[in-house]
Amino acid sequence: MRIGIVGATGYGGAELLRLLKNHPKVKDIHLYTSSKDGVHISDSYPHLTDVYNLTLKAFDADVVSQETDLVFMATPPGVSAESTDQVAKNGTKVIDLSGDLRLEDPAIYERWYKRKAADQKTIDLAIYGLNEWAKEEVQSAAIIANPGCYPTAALLGLAPLVQKDLVVHDSIIIDAKTGTSGAGRSTSSATHFSEMSENFKIYQVNSHKHTPEIEQQLKRWNEGIGAITFQTHLVPMVRGIMTTMYVQLNESFSQEQLHQLYNDVYKDSPFVRIRKENHYPATREVYGSNYCDIGLSYDERTGRATIVSVIDNMVKGAAGQAIQNMNVMNGWDESTGLDVVPVYP
Amino acid sequence: MRIGIVGATGYGGAELLRLLKNHPKVKDIHLYTSSKDGVHISDSYPHLTDVYNLTLKAFDADVVSQETDLVFMATPPGVSAESTDQVAKNGTKVIDLSGDLRLEDPAIYERWYKRKAADQKTIDLAIYGLNEWAKEEVQSAAIIANPGCYPTAALLGLAPLVQKDLVVHDSIIIDAKTGTSGAGRSTSSATHFSEMSENFKIYQVNSHKHTPEIEQQLKRWNEGIGAITFQTHLVPMVRGIMTTMYVQLNESFSQEQLHQLYNDVYKDSPFVRIRKENHYPATREVYGSNYCDIGLSYDERTGRATIVSVIDNMVKGAAGQAIQNMNVMNGWDESTGLDVVPVYP
Amino acid sequence: MRIGIVGATGYGGAELLRLLKNHPKVKDIHLYTSSKDGVHISDSYPHLTDVYNLTLKAFDADVVSQETDLVFMATPPGVSAESTDQVAKNGTKVIDLSGDLRLEDPAIYERWYKRKAADQKTIDLAIYGLNEWAKEEVQSAAIIANPGCYPTAALLGLAPLVQKDLVVHDSIIIDAKTGTSGAGRSTSSATHFSEMSENFKIYQVNSHKHTPEIEQQLKRWNEGIGAITFQTHLVPMVRGIMTTMYVQLNESFSQEQLHQLYNDVYKDSPFVRIRKENHYPATREVYGSNYCDIGLSYDERTGRATIVSVIDNMVKGAAGQAIQNMNVMNGWDESTGLDVVPVYP
Amino acid sequence: MRIGIVGATGYGGAELLRLLKNHPKVKDIHLYTSSKDGVHISDSYPHLTDVYNLTLKAFDADVVSQETDLVFMATPPGVSAESTDQVAKNGTKVIDLSGDLRLEDPAIYERWYKRKAADQKTIDLAIYGLNEWAKEEVQSAAIIANPGCYPTAALLGLAPLVQKDLVVHDSIIIDAKTGTSGAGRSTSSATHFSEMSENFKIYQVNSHKHTPEIEQQLKRWNEGIGAITFQTHLVPMVRGIMTTMYVQLNESFSQEQLHQLYNDVYKDSPFVRIRKENHYPATREVYGSNYCDIGLSYDERTGRATIVSVIDNMVKGAAGQAIQNMNVMNGWDESTGLDVVPVYP
Repeated sequence: MRIGIVGATGYGGAELLRLLKNHPKVKDIHLYTSSKDGVHISDSYPHLTDVYNLTLKAFDADVVSQETDLVFMATPPGVSAESTDQVAKNGTKVIDLSGDLRLEDPAIYERWYKRKAADQKTIDLAIYGLNEWAKEEVQSAAIIANPGCYPTAALLGLAPLVQKDLVVHDSIIIDAKTGTSGAGRSTSSATHFSEMSENFKIYQVNSHKHTPEIEQQLKRWNEGIGAITFQTHLVPMVRGIMTTMYVQLNESFSQEQLHQLYNDVYKDSPFVRIRKENHYPATREVYGSNYCDIGLSYDERTGRATIVSVIDNMVKGAAGQAIQNMNVMNGWDESTGLDVVPVYP
Repeated sequence: MRIGIVGATGYGGAELLRLLKNHPKVKDIHLYTSSKDGVHISDSYPHLTDVYNLTLKAFDADVVSQETDLVFMATPPGVSAESTDQVAKNGTKVIDLSGDLRLEDPAIYERWYKRKAADQKTIDLAIYGLNEWAKEEVQSAAIIANPGCYPTAALLGLAPLVQKDLVVHDSIIIDAKTGTSGAGRSTSSATHFSEMSENFKIYQVNSHKHTPEIEQQLKRWNEGIGAITFQTHLVPMVRGIMTTMYVQLNESFSQEQLHQLYNDVYKDSPFVRIRKENHYPATREVYGSNYCDIGLSYDERTGRATIVSVIDNMVKGAAGQAIQNMNVMNGWDESTGLDVVPVYP
Repeated sequence: MRIGIVGATGYGGAELLRLLKNHPKVKDIHLYTSSKDGVHISDSYPHLTDVYNLTLKAFDADVVSQETDLVFMATPPGVSAESTDQVAKNGTKVIDLSGDLRLEDPAIYERWYKRKAADQKTIDLAIYGLNEWAKEEVQSAAIIANPGCYPTAALLGLAPLVQKDLVVHDSIIIDAKTGTSGAGRSTSSATHFSEMSENFKIYQVNSHKHTPEIEQQLKRWNEGIGAITFQTHLVPMVRGIMTTMYVQLNESFSQEQLHQLYNDVYKDSPFVRIRKENHYPATREVYGSNYCDIGLSYDERTGRATIVSVIDNMVKGAAGQAIQNMNVMNGWDESTGLDVVPVYP
Repeated sequence: MRIGIVGATGYGGAELLRLLKNHPKVKDIHLYTSSKDGVHISDSYPHLTDVYNLTLKAFDADVVSQETDLVFMATPPGVSAESTDQVAKNGTKVIDLSGDLRLEDPAIYERWYKRKAADQKTIDLAIYGLNEWAKEEVQSAAIIANPGCYPTAALLGLAPLVQKDLVVHDSIIIDAKTGTSGAGRSTSSATHFSEMSENFKIYQVNSHKHTPEIEQQLKRWNEGIGAITFQTHLVPMVRGIMTTMYVQLNESFSQEQLHQLYNDVYKDSPFVRIRKENHYPATREVYGSNYCDIGLSYDERTGRATIVSVIDNMVKGAAGQAIQNMNVMNGWDESTGLDVVPVYP
């Protein structure tokens, strides 16, 4: 199978290269870029010296559609919106890691992303690839909208309660924290080491563009769910997301019942690990791996459940889930090439 | 004025020494310890070399009551509960930085702290020194229960809305994040560098002992307030607390009204800085200083306000507020010795 | 092949487990401990949940010698000195990650380690497994003394110049920097997050016990080499070692010649990567991998070469090199199970 | 006294503002910028909210010469070279924190800085303000070239041995490590958090422009001193420099003699603290303060001394030493406004 990566000089591209190295089905990889045409990958990423002997090629949708059977779009906003149909025209499958194809309503996309949406036709073709909850659709998909990092962590944590309609509809609050790698490789004063280290920040208050993505999926599961509160924070670390989620339950629960529910729901999902009672995951415990670890607590004093989920934003929140989707699209075991153990400490 | 610090080898003691160095009213300082009797302070803290020429003395409540006019108890749980009345018997004023004297109901103390409470008499004498909201009581107090780090950040952020009864009573959720210095100088695997760095953790889920302290004060302001949800996280940084607080408002607000309210309430408080609209504080912006910075947002989609407050847990959350209380107790300007500028970056 | 890990709850043990997970020749693993007998590995290391279903067994040398064909000793100083001969008596091969068997002269061991050395017989049997320079000896060894983390980085960097006698004999200075994981999982005030973060320290000045290990190997290569200066520093990061090495060359060199020499010497070593001229490695570029990356510079102003080498102290400096040695001992390709790509960023 | 800061939006400017806040002789401050004309200082630096009510003015050398009595140039390379004589023409004293006026030979400046040097006349007027070793010249100076951060740490550490001609002339090696704040506020991929955190790098190998500055001063003290080796590294922390220095001594020393020498030399220098035998400073122990702490070791095995010095690069390495120079120029006590205690932890 011939694989393409568009946007290979970004962190998402580099992470795909790390994980694909040991994928038994993938041998022929092509790298495309809009800015570093002709550069050897090890000049852009010295850590890949002797790992890959590949040179970046200029991105041209027609060329990609001819040279590859499946392509990962690890591109900035707007690229996939413009070029996906051309890339896909000859049957090349597309897994889009950008947010361009995730929202089914172009008006909502344009309100939150402040840019032009993709064609309705392309959007309609794209399957939202939250893998644990979309196995069948992914299997037959031609285009995958790979979920955002925050939505992956939040939705995997909320799914059991929302699907079973156990939460008060307007009570969902998601307090999310991320490392800096999610902000990408381009520099900004916000991610300057001198400004980030020994610092903790809130950003994009009430305006993060993953908000409608989370709401869309929650409403697919349970149309009664109302607007959520979703706030995002920047942690002085590189990798990792934790979402601490607060929901008012509409019936009383014991800790045991809560754990039983989640263990049942996820018993066949190899990448979701439910912590036992009174134990909660830390981001480092999934570092470099495709796991989503979840901890659960119910507080009788308030009738509220607190759900804690962690992922490595670069893996389960991006490249790892994309490969998991590739695996399912091709009928391979979903874990193929993804059996990497978290790096700890 | 003769000043004592009990527990001078802990971080709270060291921070008191840093801040008191330039306090114009303080010259005569005595250091007490239960473990490092006879050690020079610079052997315990090399950064204080040539700053103080002081040797630690064994803690003995009688001696302290004779040698000092005012004493800071920067001690582990239990010490103040046992010894405050003896220290105070000759008129020595006490500012207790431990949590021993903060909760007025011994039963609640014992439930959350899992240890024996102080005598009711001592508890009754202690004034809860949330300085911005207790100027008069502090002025005439003999014993101050210096507020906890989290409660300081949370209560200063919630006070205006709770006092004016603008929040739905059972809707308060506090998602708190702290650096590691709050855990003190003693070592543990939780604060081991190899376990903390590049990691983000939740801890003491639904069981942090600052929960009843926050609830007690909220109810003093507004007896209708119900149980709160309060979760705490450990950030890979040394200093700083951010509390992100979610409250359902019982009437619709504009951003402008919200800011107007807070600016009015805190206009005479030199250590509370309200950020302007669409701006939010980061922990580093108060690093090393006695400021509490607050950012505000109201979301029309949900009817919820998000209040963000940051402090340096070692200063406004401990030593700085203690000195502010000392100043007010003695009739000095509350800012005396506390005009330190945040260290940035 | 039946594999044992003694000291499986330390970081070295955890790292062996991470790397062995995908080793095609290893299936049957036994874990031994002196302190956590009966504990499931995922209770000691939650990141290994669902990765290994193994329970720790009490360490008993006789049992290990019966249950395993090859054992990794990832133990504190002293354990291997005492128990290696018993473990090895039935033909179990031993790879010792502690420093107990590295120094051939017991008197030198005792001077630098301040504890009793192993029996001379055991020491004599142990092969110093600096893999790139000991392929043949390792192949036929029954016991391997796995090199220390600093010596691995330093010796791989110095080997070409020292072996060819190009350096002034008494001019070698090694300025080494390490992350905290090398200090292990036990807590200490030195590796307390609050003391380490935003801090840079020198430690064990002129007294680090890796000093004689480096000197011993340099003298094996070139008996004229004199005492070295070796200083070690603690960097606020978890993984990674850089050694910056200063040597006076006894003849004039060009940058090009220097690079040519190193490229020639290491052309068949898959884990040693020489950076091109004017490029130097950073520790993150080998994070989680078995690479040793080397950068080179010659300064005509001073006649000195500066050699910079980086490794991941947990991998090439410990578990990775141990597995590389296991591979060679068993006649497998040295890279088996070690083709992990550095995690970046 | 009317004080100006040119380049007030950089970190050097911000640090001057932090320290000057409590300087008893300074009240009237003017801020100049080349890029943020009209911006309030608290919009550029929120941590200065309510601390200073100052608006940035466009930099114009004539205006500065009229509005101020003393000006700090905290500017990028080139600005001081061009404008110092104009700023100084009416008697305004100049303390230049850039490197433009430090090297007495324009040819050397141009070789290392790769840009045009200042006029010889301006250079000749500028006094190299390594304060501990230039009290008299500073007292009568009109223009001060404030030393670089690395040279300050290195020269204070080497001075006693070099001045007394105790080192082998060609043996000086300086292995230096810095936090990222020295790289300034402008962004670059090198100081991107995702690239810096959990990483340790060497940079500007054999080419750092502080090399000739250090050599120039060493030769003023001892003309026999030859070319030095000076390598610089980037530590994942914000503030702090450590220089580990290796010198061959030309006579045998005891630890005690070495300490005696340094204690004698610096006995009247309030900002230089010599650690006692077998104790070494860490960068955090001077964090935020004007101290330079020094540790010393002599190794009989090699005849080499290792000298370790630490400073806060933003204080003693920049703004603090500049204020110390201002104090001495004006006949005030050198410590005025600089009695800040290190922030620890």
